[in-house]
Amino acid sequence: MAFADDPSAATLNMGLNSIWVLVAAILVILMQGGFILLESGSTRMKNAGHIAGKTIFTLGLCTLIYWAIGYAFAFGADNTGTAISNLIGSGDFFFSPDKAAGDGVGLPPAIFFTFQLAFAAVSLSIAWGGFAERAKLSAYLVFTVLFTALIYPVIAHWIWSADGWLFTKGAQDYAGSTVVHLTGAIAAFAATVLLKPRIGRFNKDGSANEILGHNQVFGALSVLILWVGWFGFNAGSALGVGDGFFGYVAFNTQLGAAGGAVAALLISWLMNGKADITTTLNGALAGLVAITATCAFVEPWAAVVIGLLAGVLVYFSAKFFEKIKVDDPIFALSVHGAAGIWGTLANGIFATDALAKKLNVGQGGLIDTGSWHQLWVQLESVVVCGAYVLIVSFLLLGIMKVVMGLRVTEEQEIIGLDLSEHGTFGYPEQMKKAQQTM
Amino acid sequence: MAFADDPSAATLNMGLNSIWVLVAAILVILMQGGFILLESGSTRMKNAGHIAGKTIFTLGLCTLIYWAIGYAFAFGADNTGTAISNLIGSGDFFFSPDKAAGDGVGLPPAIFFTFQLAFAAVSLSIAWGGFAERAKLSAYLVFTVLFTALIYPVIAHWIWSADGWLFTKGAQDYAGSTVVHLTGAIAAFAATVLLKPRIGRFNKDGSANEILGHNQVFGALSVLILWVGWFGFNAGSALGVGDGFFGYVAFNTQLGAAGGAVAALLISWLMNGKADITTTLNGALAGLVAITATCAFVEPWAAVVIGLLAGVLVYFSAKFFEKIKVDDPIFALSVHGAAGIWGTLANGIFATDALAKKLNVGQGGLIDTGSWHQLWVQLESVVVCGAYVLIVSFLLLGIMKVVMGLRVTEEQEIIGLDLSEHGTFGYPEQMKKAQQTM
Amino acid sequence: MAFADDPSAATLNMGLNSIWVLVAAILVILMQGGFILLESGSTRMKNAGHIAGKTIFTLGLCTLIYWAIGYAFAFGADNTGTAISNLIGSGDFFFSPDKAAGDGVGLPPAIFFTFQLAFAAVSLSIAWGGFAERAKLSAYLVFTVLFTALIYPVIAHWIWSADGWLFTKGAQDYAGSTVVHLTGAIAAFAATVLLKPRIGRFNKDGSANEILGHNQVFGALSVLILWVGWFGFNAGSALGVGDGFFGYVAFNTQLGAAGGAVAALLISWLMNGKADITTTLNGALAGLVAITATCAFVEPWAAVVIGLLAGVLVYFSAKFFEKIKVDDPIFALSVHGAAGIWGTLANGIFATDALAKKLNVGQGGLIDTGSWHQLWVQLESVVVCGAYVLIVSFLLLGIMKVVMGLRVTEEQEIIGLDLSEHGTFGYPEQMKKAQQTM
Repeated sequence: MAFADDPSAATLNMGLNSIWVLVAAILVILMQGGFILLESGSTRMKNAGHIAGKTIFTLGLCTLIYWAIGYAFAFGADNTGTAISNLIGSGDFFFSPDKAAGDGVGLPPAIFFTFQLAFAAVSLSIAWGGFAERAKLSAYLVFTVLFTALIYPVIAHWIWSADGWLFTKGAQDYAGSTVVHLTGAIAAFAATVLLKPRIGRFNKDGSANEILGHNQVFGALSVLILWVGWFGFNAGSALGVGDGFFGYVAFNTQLGAAGGAVAALLISWLMNGKADITTTLNGALAGLVAITATCAFVEPWAAVVIGLLAGVLVYFSAKFFEKIKVDDPIFALSVHGAAGIWGTLANGIFATDALAKKLNVGQGGLIDTGSWHQLWVQLESVVVCGAYVLIVSFLLLGIMKVVMGLRVTEEQEIIGLDLSEHGTFGYPEQMKKAQQTM
Repeated sequence: MAFADDPSAATLNMGLNSIWVLVAAILVILMQGGFILLESGSTRMKNAGHIAGKTIFTLGLCTLIYWAIGYAFAFGADNTGTAISNLIGSGDFFFSPDKAAGDGVGLPPAIFFTFQLAFAAVSLSIAWGGFAERAKLSAYLVFTVLFTALIYPVIAHWIWSADGWLFTKGAQDYAGSTVVHLTGAIAAFAATVLLKPRIGRFNKDGSANEILGHNQVFGALSVLILWVGWFGFNAGSALGVGDGFFGYVAFNTQLGAAGGAVAALLISWLMNGKADITTTLNGALAGLVAITATCAFVEPWAAVVIGLLAGVLVYFSAKFFEKIKVDDPIFALSVHGAAGIWGTLANGIFATDALAKKLNVGQGGLIDTGSWHQLWVQLESVVVCGAYVLIVSFLLLGIMKVVMGLRVTEEQEIIGLDLSEHGTFGYPEQMKKAQQTM
Repeated sequence: MAFADDPSAATLNMGLNSIWVLVAAILVILMQGGFILLESGSTRMKNAGHIAGKTIFTLGLCTLIYWAIGYAFAFGADNTGTAISNLIGSGDFFFSPDKAAGDGVGLPPAIFFTFQLAFAAVSLSIAWGGFAERAKLSAYLVFTVLFTALIYPVIAHWIWSADGWLFTKGAQDYAGSTVVHLTGAIAAFAATVLLKPRIGRFNKDGSANEILGHNQVFGALSVLILWVGWFGFNAGSALGVGDGFFGYVAFNTQLGAAGGAVAALLISWLMNGKADITTTLNGALAGLVAITATCAFVEPWAAVVIGLLAGVLVYFSAKFFEKIKVDDPIFALSVHGAAGIWGTLANGIFATDALAKKLNVGQGGLIDTGSWHQLWVQLESVVVCGAYVLIVSFLLLGIMKVVMGLRVTEEQEIIGLDLSEHGTFGYPEQMKKAQQTM
């Protein structure tokens, strides 16, 4: 079957696009490995097994829910091939590639689905940043279902579905600075506000204590894995090979990441007298988040500038959230929230008209066209998506808080979630020694 | 050379298939990184360097032996292009792509070889699950040679070679639930029985002590890396791009893994009152193992069911092996053995006739056809392959035990294999501190 | 755009090459994850965050400098499409794919650039081997700029640019045993000589103390990640798919790595009575380094031999550098230097005339042709490239040493670079406990 002697050009082209988008989907799923290391490395040893292991579970549950429900709301269509609404999709519940009717049919439906699923799972993993070190395992379970069914797909439909109301208005978010990153970050914000800060994070006098993560090697490796996966994230969003444009997207992605890492290290060095590793790592990620919306719309010099500014932004954003006493253990609010907003708005400034026309989404930004129009569209997109996610997340998590409780007891938090939620340490030998020497 | 202006459709098609299968082979080799983390994370700190480092060595040795001998027995052919027998291949010893005569010539022979080699190495790494924390390094060396030359290639020939006797009977094992996973698991079973349990694993009164692994972050990351690599494992087994069917295989793979992770967490929560991280991780892997045989033969809903049942199975299987006092440090017998059998049999239940016809292997299973025929074929396949591996493994390891010994001394086991086999700790700073505080 | 119904064969062929080379570039960037683990695992816990985190920063800075300057010197051309000189390129500063005029235009320029950038970053990461555990962060910053702008691009131009003077003489270095590995290793050599050995590495009586790395699991995983990335490194250097030759390159790469791992373990076992894990890991890498130049020029049996000899070489090379009191913390001089020289020379011995003709670079080596010519060309290539890098590295690092200083103070080195350069430990919980028990 694979060895047809003389396939048509259209078949070969479909094959090309299939390979690239499936490889891209695999790279995006690999990003979960980055999240395992990022989340566990940024937190304490007593919670490491819990935090790392729950990612495998929530990736699994997210897959089942997105398959059953989420995809249908994002990209599903009735059997005439049209979505029921520009507000929400419908029609491919319990997705079966043979019967797929919705978006993405230029690719084998199974590949389009897998690629989209991987994005949903990334957005969910970003949201976990607000739950870390104190949420009950049952909260992860329930919120996975709610986020995957009711929050993420709505934003994906608005901006990425051909029927989505923001898409038809020309909102530019190539690979999801808003759809994936801001959505996840705002859910994280709702969670961390409702959960309240970790014990010991802030003092009664209003000052803050840094709760250091336990493993910066995990941190650095996580950033590298995410960086690598981001090539699938961004360049995969070309959804095909075409004239090689996906390579341009990858190239800009690399520039944005680089700018973020360099600027963040330098700004922390300048401000504190010592270059901070955590800030550097956050800077690389912020550069990647900011270039996510813009990678296909801007010139290389602009990719560098967008990344550099993201690196500076993430430093001050983290200071800001600490100042207002919002506990952000994995820096999700700064890395994915602030930089997600910046990246989305940046299209309104830096997008070129030529690339917007090539992609047939919106128009050029302020610098290229002198017009404020696209910046306004981008701002609207950030505001309405942010508002939807904020309201629905607070509502759903608020109900969960009342009905089932979100947070473990104080005693459980102190002994750590490895023991309290799972019955064994994630690092049994080291933790037992630690207890003995205490 | 790479830039011919106007290649033929057949050349382009070969190029497509070449890219995908080489990428798949690379993903399968990446799975060794998963095994490094899985094996070391599941065992104690005193053995970590040994366990992690030996994987690099045995991957190397397996490569040389499969190149010299193993491939010839699995897929080799004489210069007429036919295997000498439906029991064993022959003819491409010291494999040279220019002279390749056997299977897989629809792909560049070097790529087909590399893909097949990666599978042999995975099966071998599964077998190491039975050796952990007490086998001598020399046992790893010798058994790598024997397994790669005499055990794995025979099963691969029977089920995957176009001349293999089980293939011609219609045995369905798309990517190796039996060929790779069950084979490795049964070798692990023979090893762990002959080696006897680790010191302290079982008490004289018959009760068991849990010997916890030292790093669940490694465990979770290992599962994610294996999950990612599995897309190469399963979707690469399409051996090409064709009409995009490899994407369907990847999609089903994701569903199976998800089902396994979710079911395992839930069953452990239900049974113990606490969700167990190790069980969750094993569940994801069991889902992947079970979907390996079935990914191309079943519909999406069946992939979910197969995964869910694999997740439940792995929990009870681990309990069973503990009860009968078989020490299974990496859970190879449950993850790869029990779930490997389940996955192979599942084709006899869930395979659709349409997909069996499309792939031209066997027929539909019980649900689609009402016929028990395919289930019987699958059962026969499991039994005869299992019996071959069991007998030959016991024989070869038994001879090794008599001639050279398999197990380190009690003293060596207590101080750990890092010191006893290699002369330094894998974690020198931490272990020295541990010794001081003891 | 991606879904043109009936693209031409040339467009499809460009698409094939684009996919493979971009995937290869991503794999090479993944190798930075290997370096994060290799460098941090090979050094002490007090420096782990610094060493891991700086890789993200220097990858970023290297990207910006290579984009602005380095690529122009390596592959840039004026707008007639020719390089200004066979000594150095010029013309694509602040690289913009739309305006690219230089080499590699058979691929989308953005993809060719990204692939080449990834190589520059690997060479830089090799150089860090000489800086480990005592260089100031500012030295990393400044040397990244100098190496990426002035050292690496010159060698890349000489051997890989169509205008390069060594290329036109027929120097065979398929994927960079010299260009990438030897260049990095010689810069590391200059650095480690100028920095002097770490405190405690050598005694006054001339004897050596082993300073063990802290994590062999990181070491083994790093080797596996590098191994996987190397398929992109070597097989990506085909710069396209063509007749499937890139698969042959990957196959030889696997054989070379395997030979190195096996030989190194066996030689250390033979010489010391215990198989050494670090040597085994170095052996796999040395096999990969040696097969890098040769992978496309030799037959499979020769790939095995080249790898085996590299594995033996790396053991004795490490002994040699210890004997002459050169401190080589990450074994860069042996793994990338000695094996890089060996690999480059090996073409002069093992290259076949048929493959040299196919690739249109030089001619067959001693065994195939009986002629010493190619070996002489290879030797010349090693000597002149080595000399250039040695002189320029000593000069630039020497100036840096005078102007800004290269090394932290003794006190800073003793407390570790995590605290001294960044203000927090990379492993805060473990290091604080360590301090308490001291």
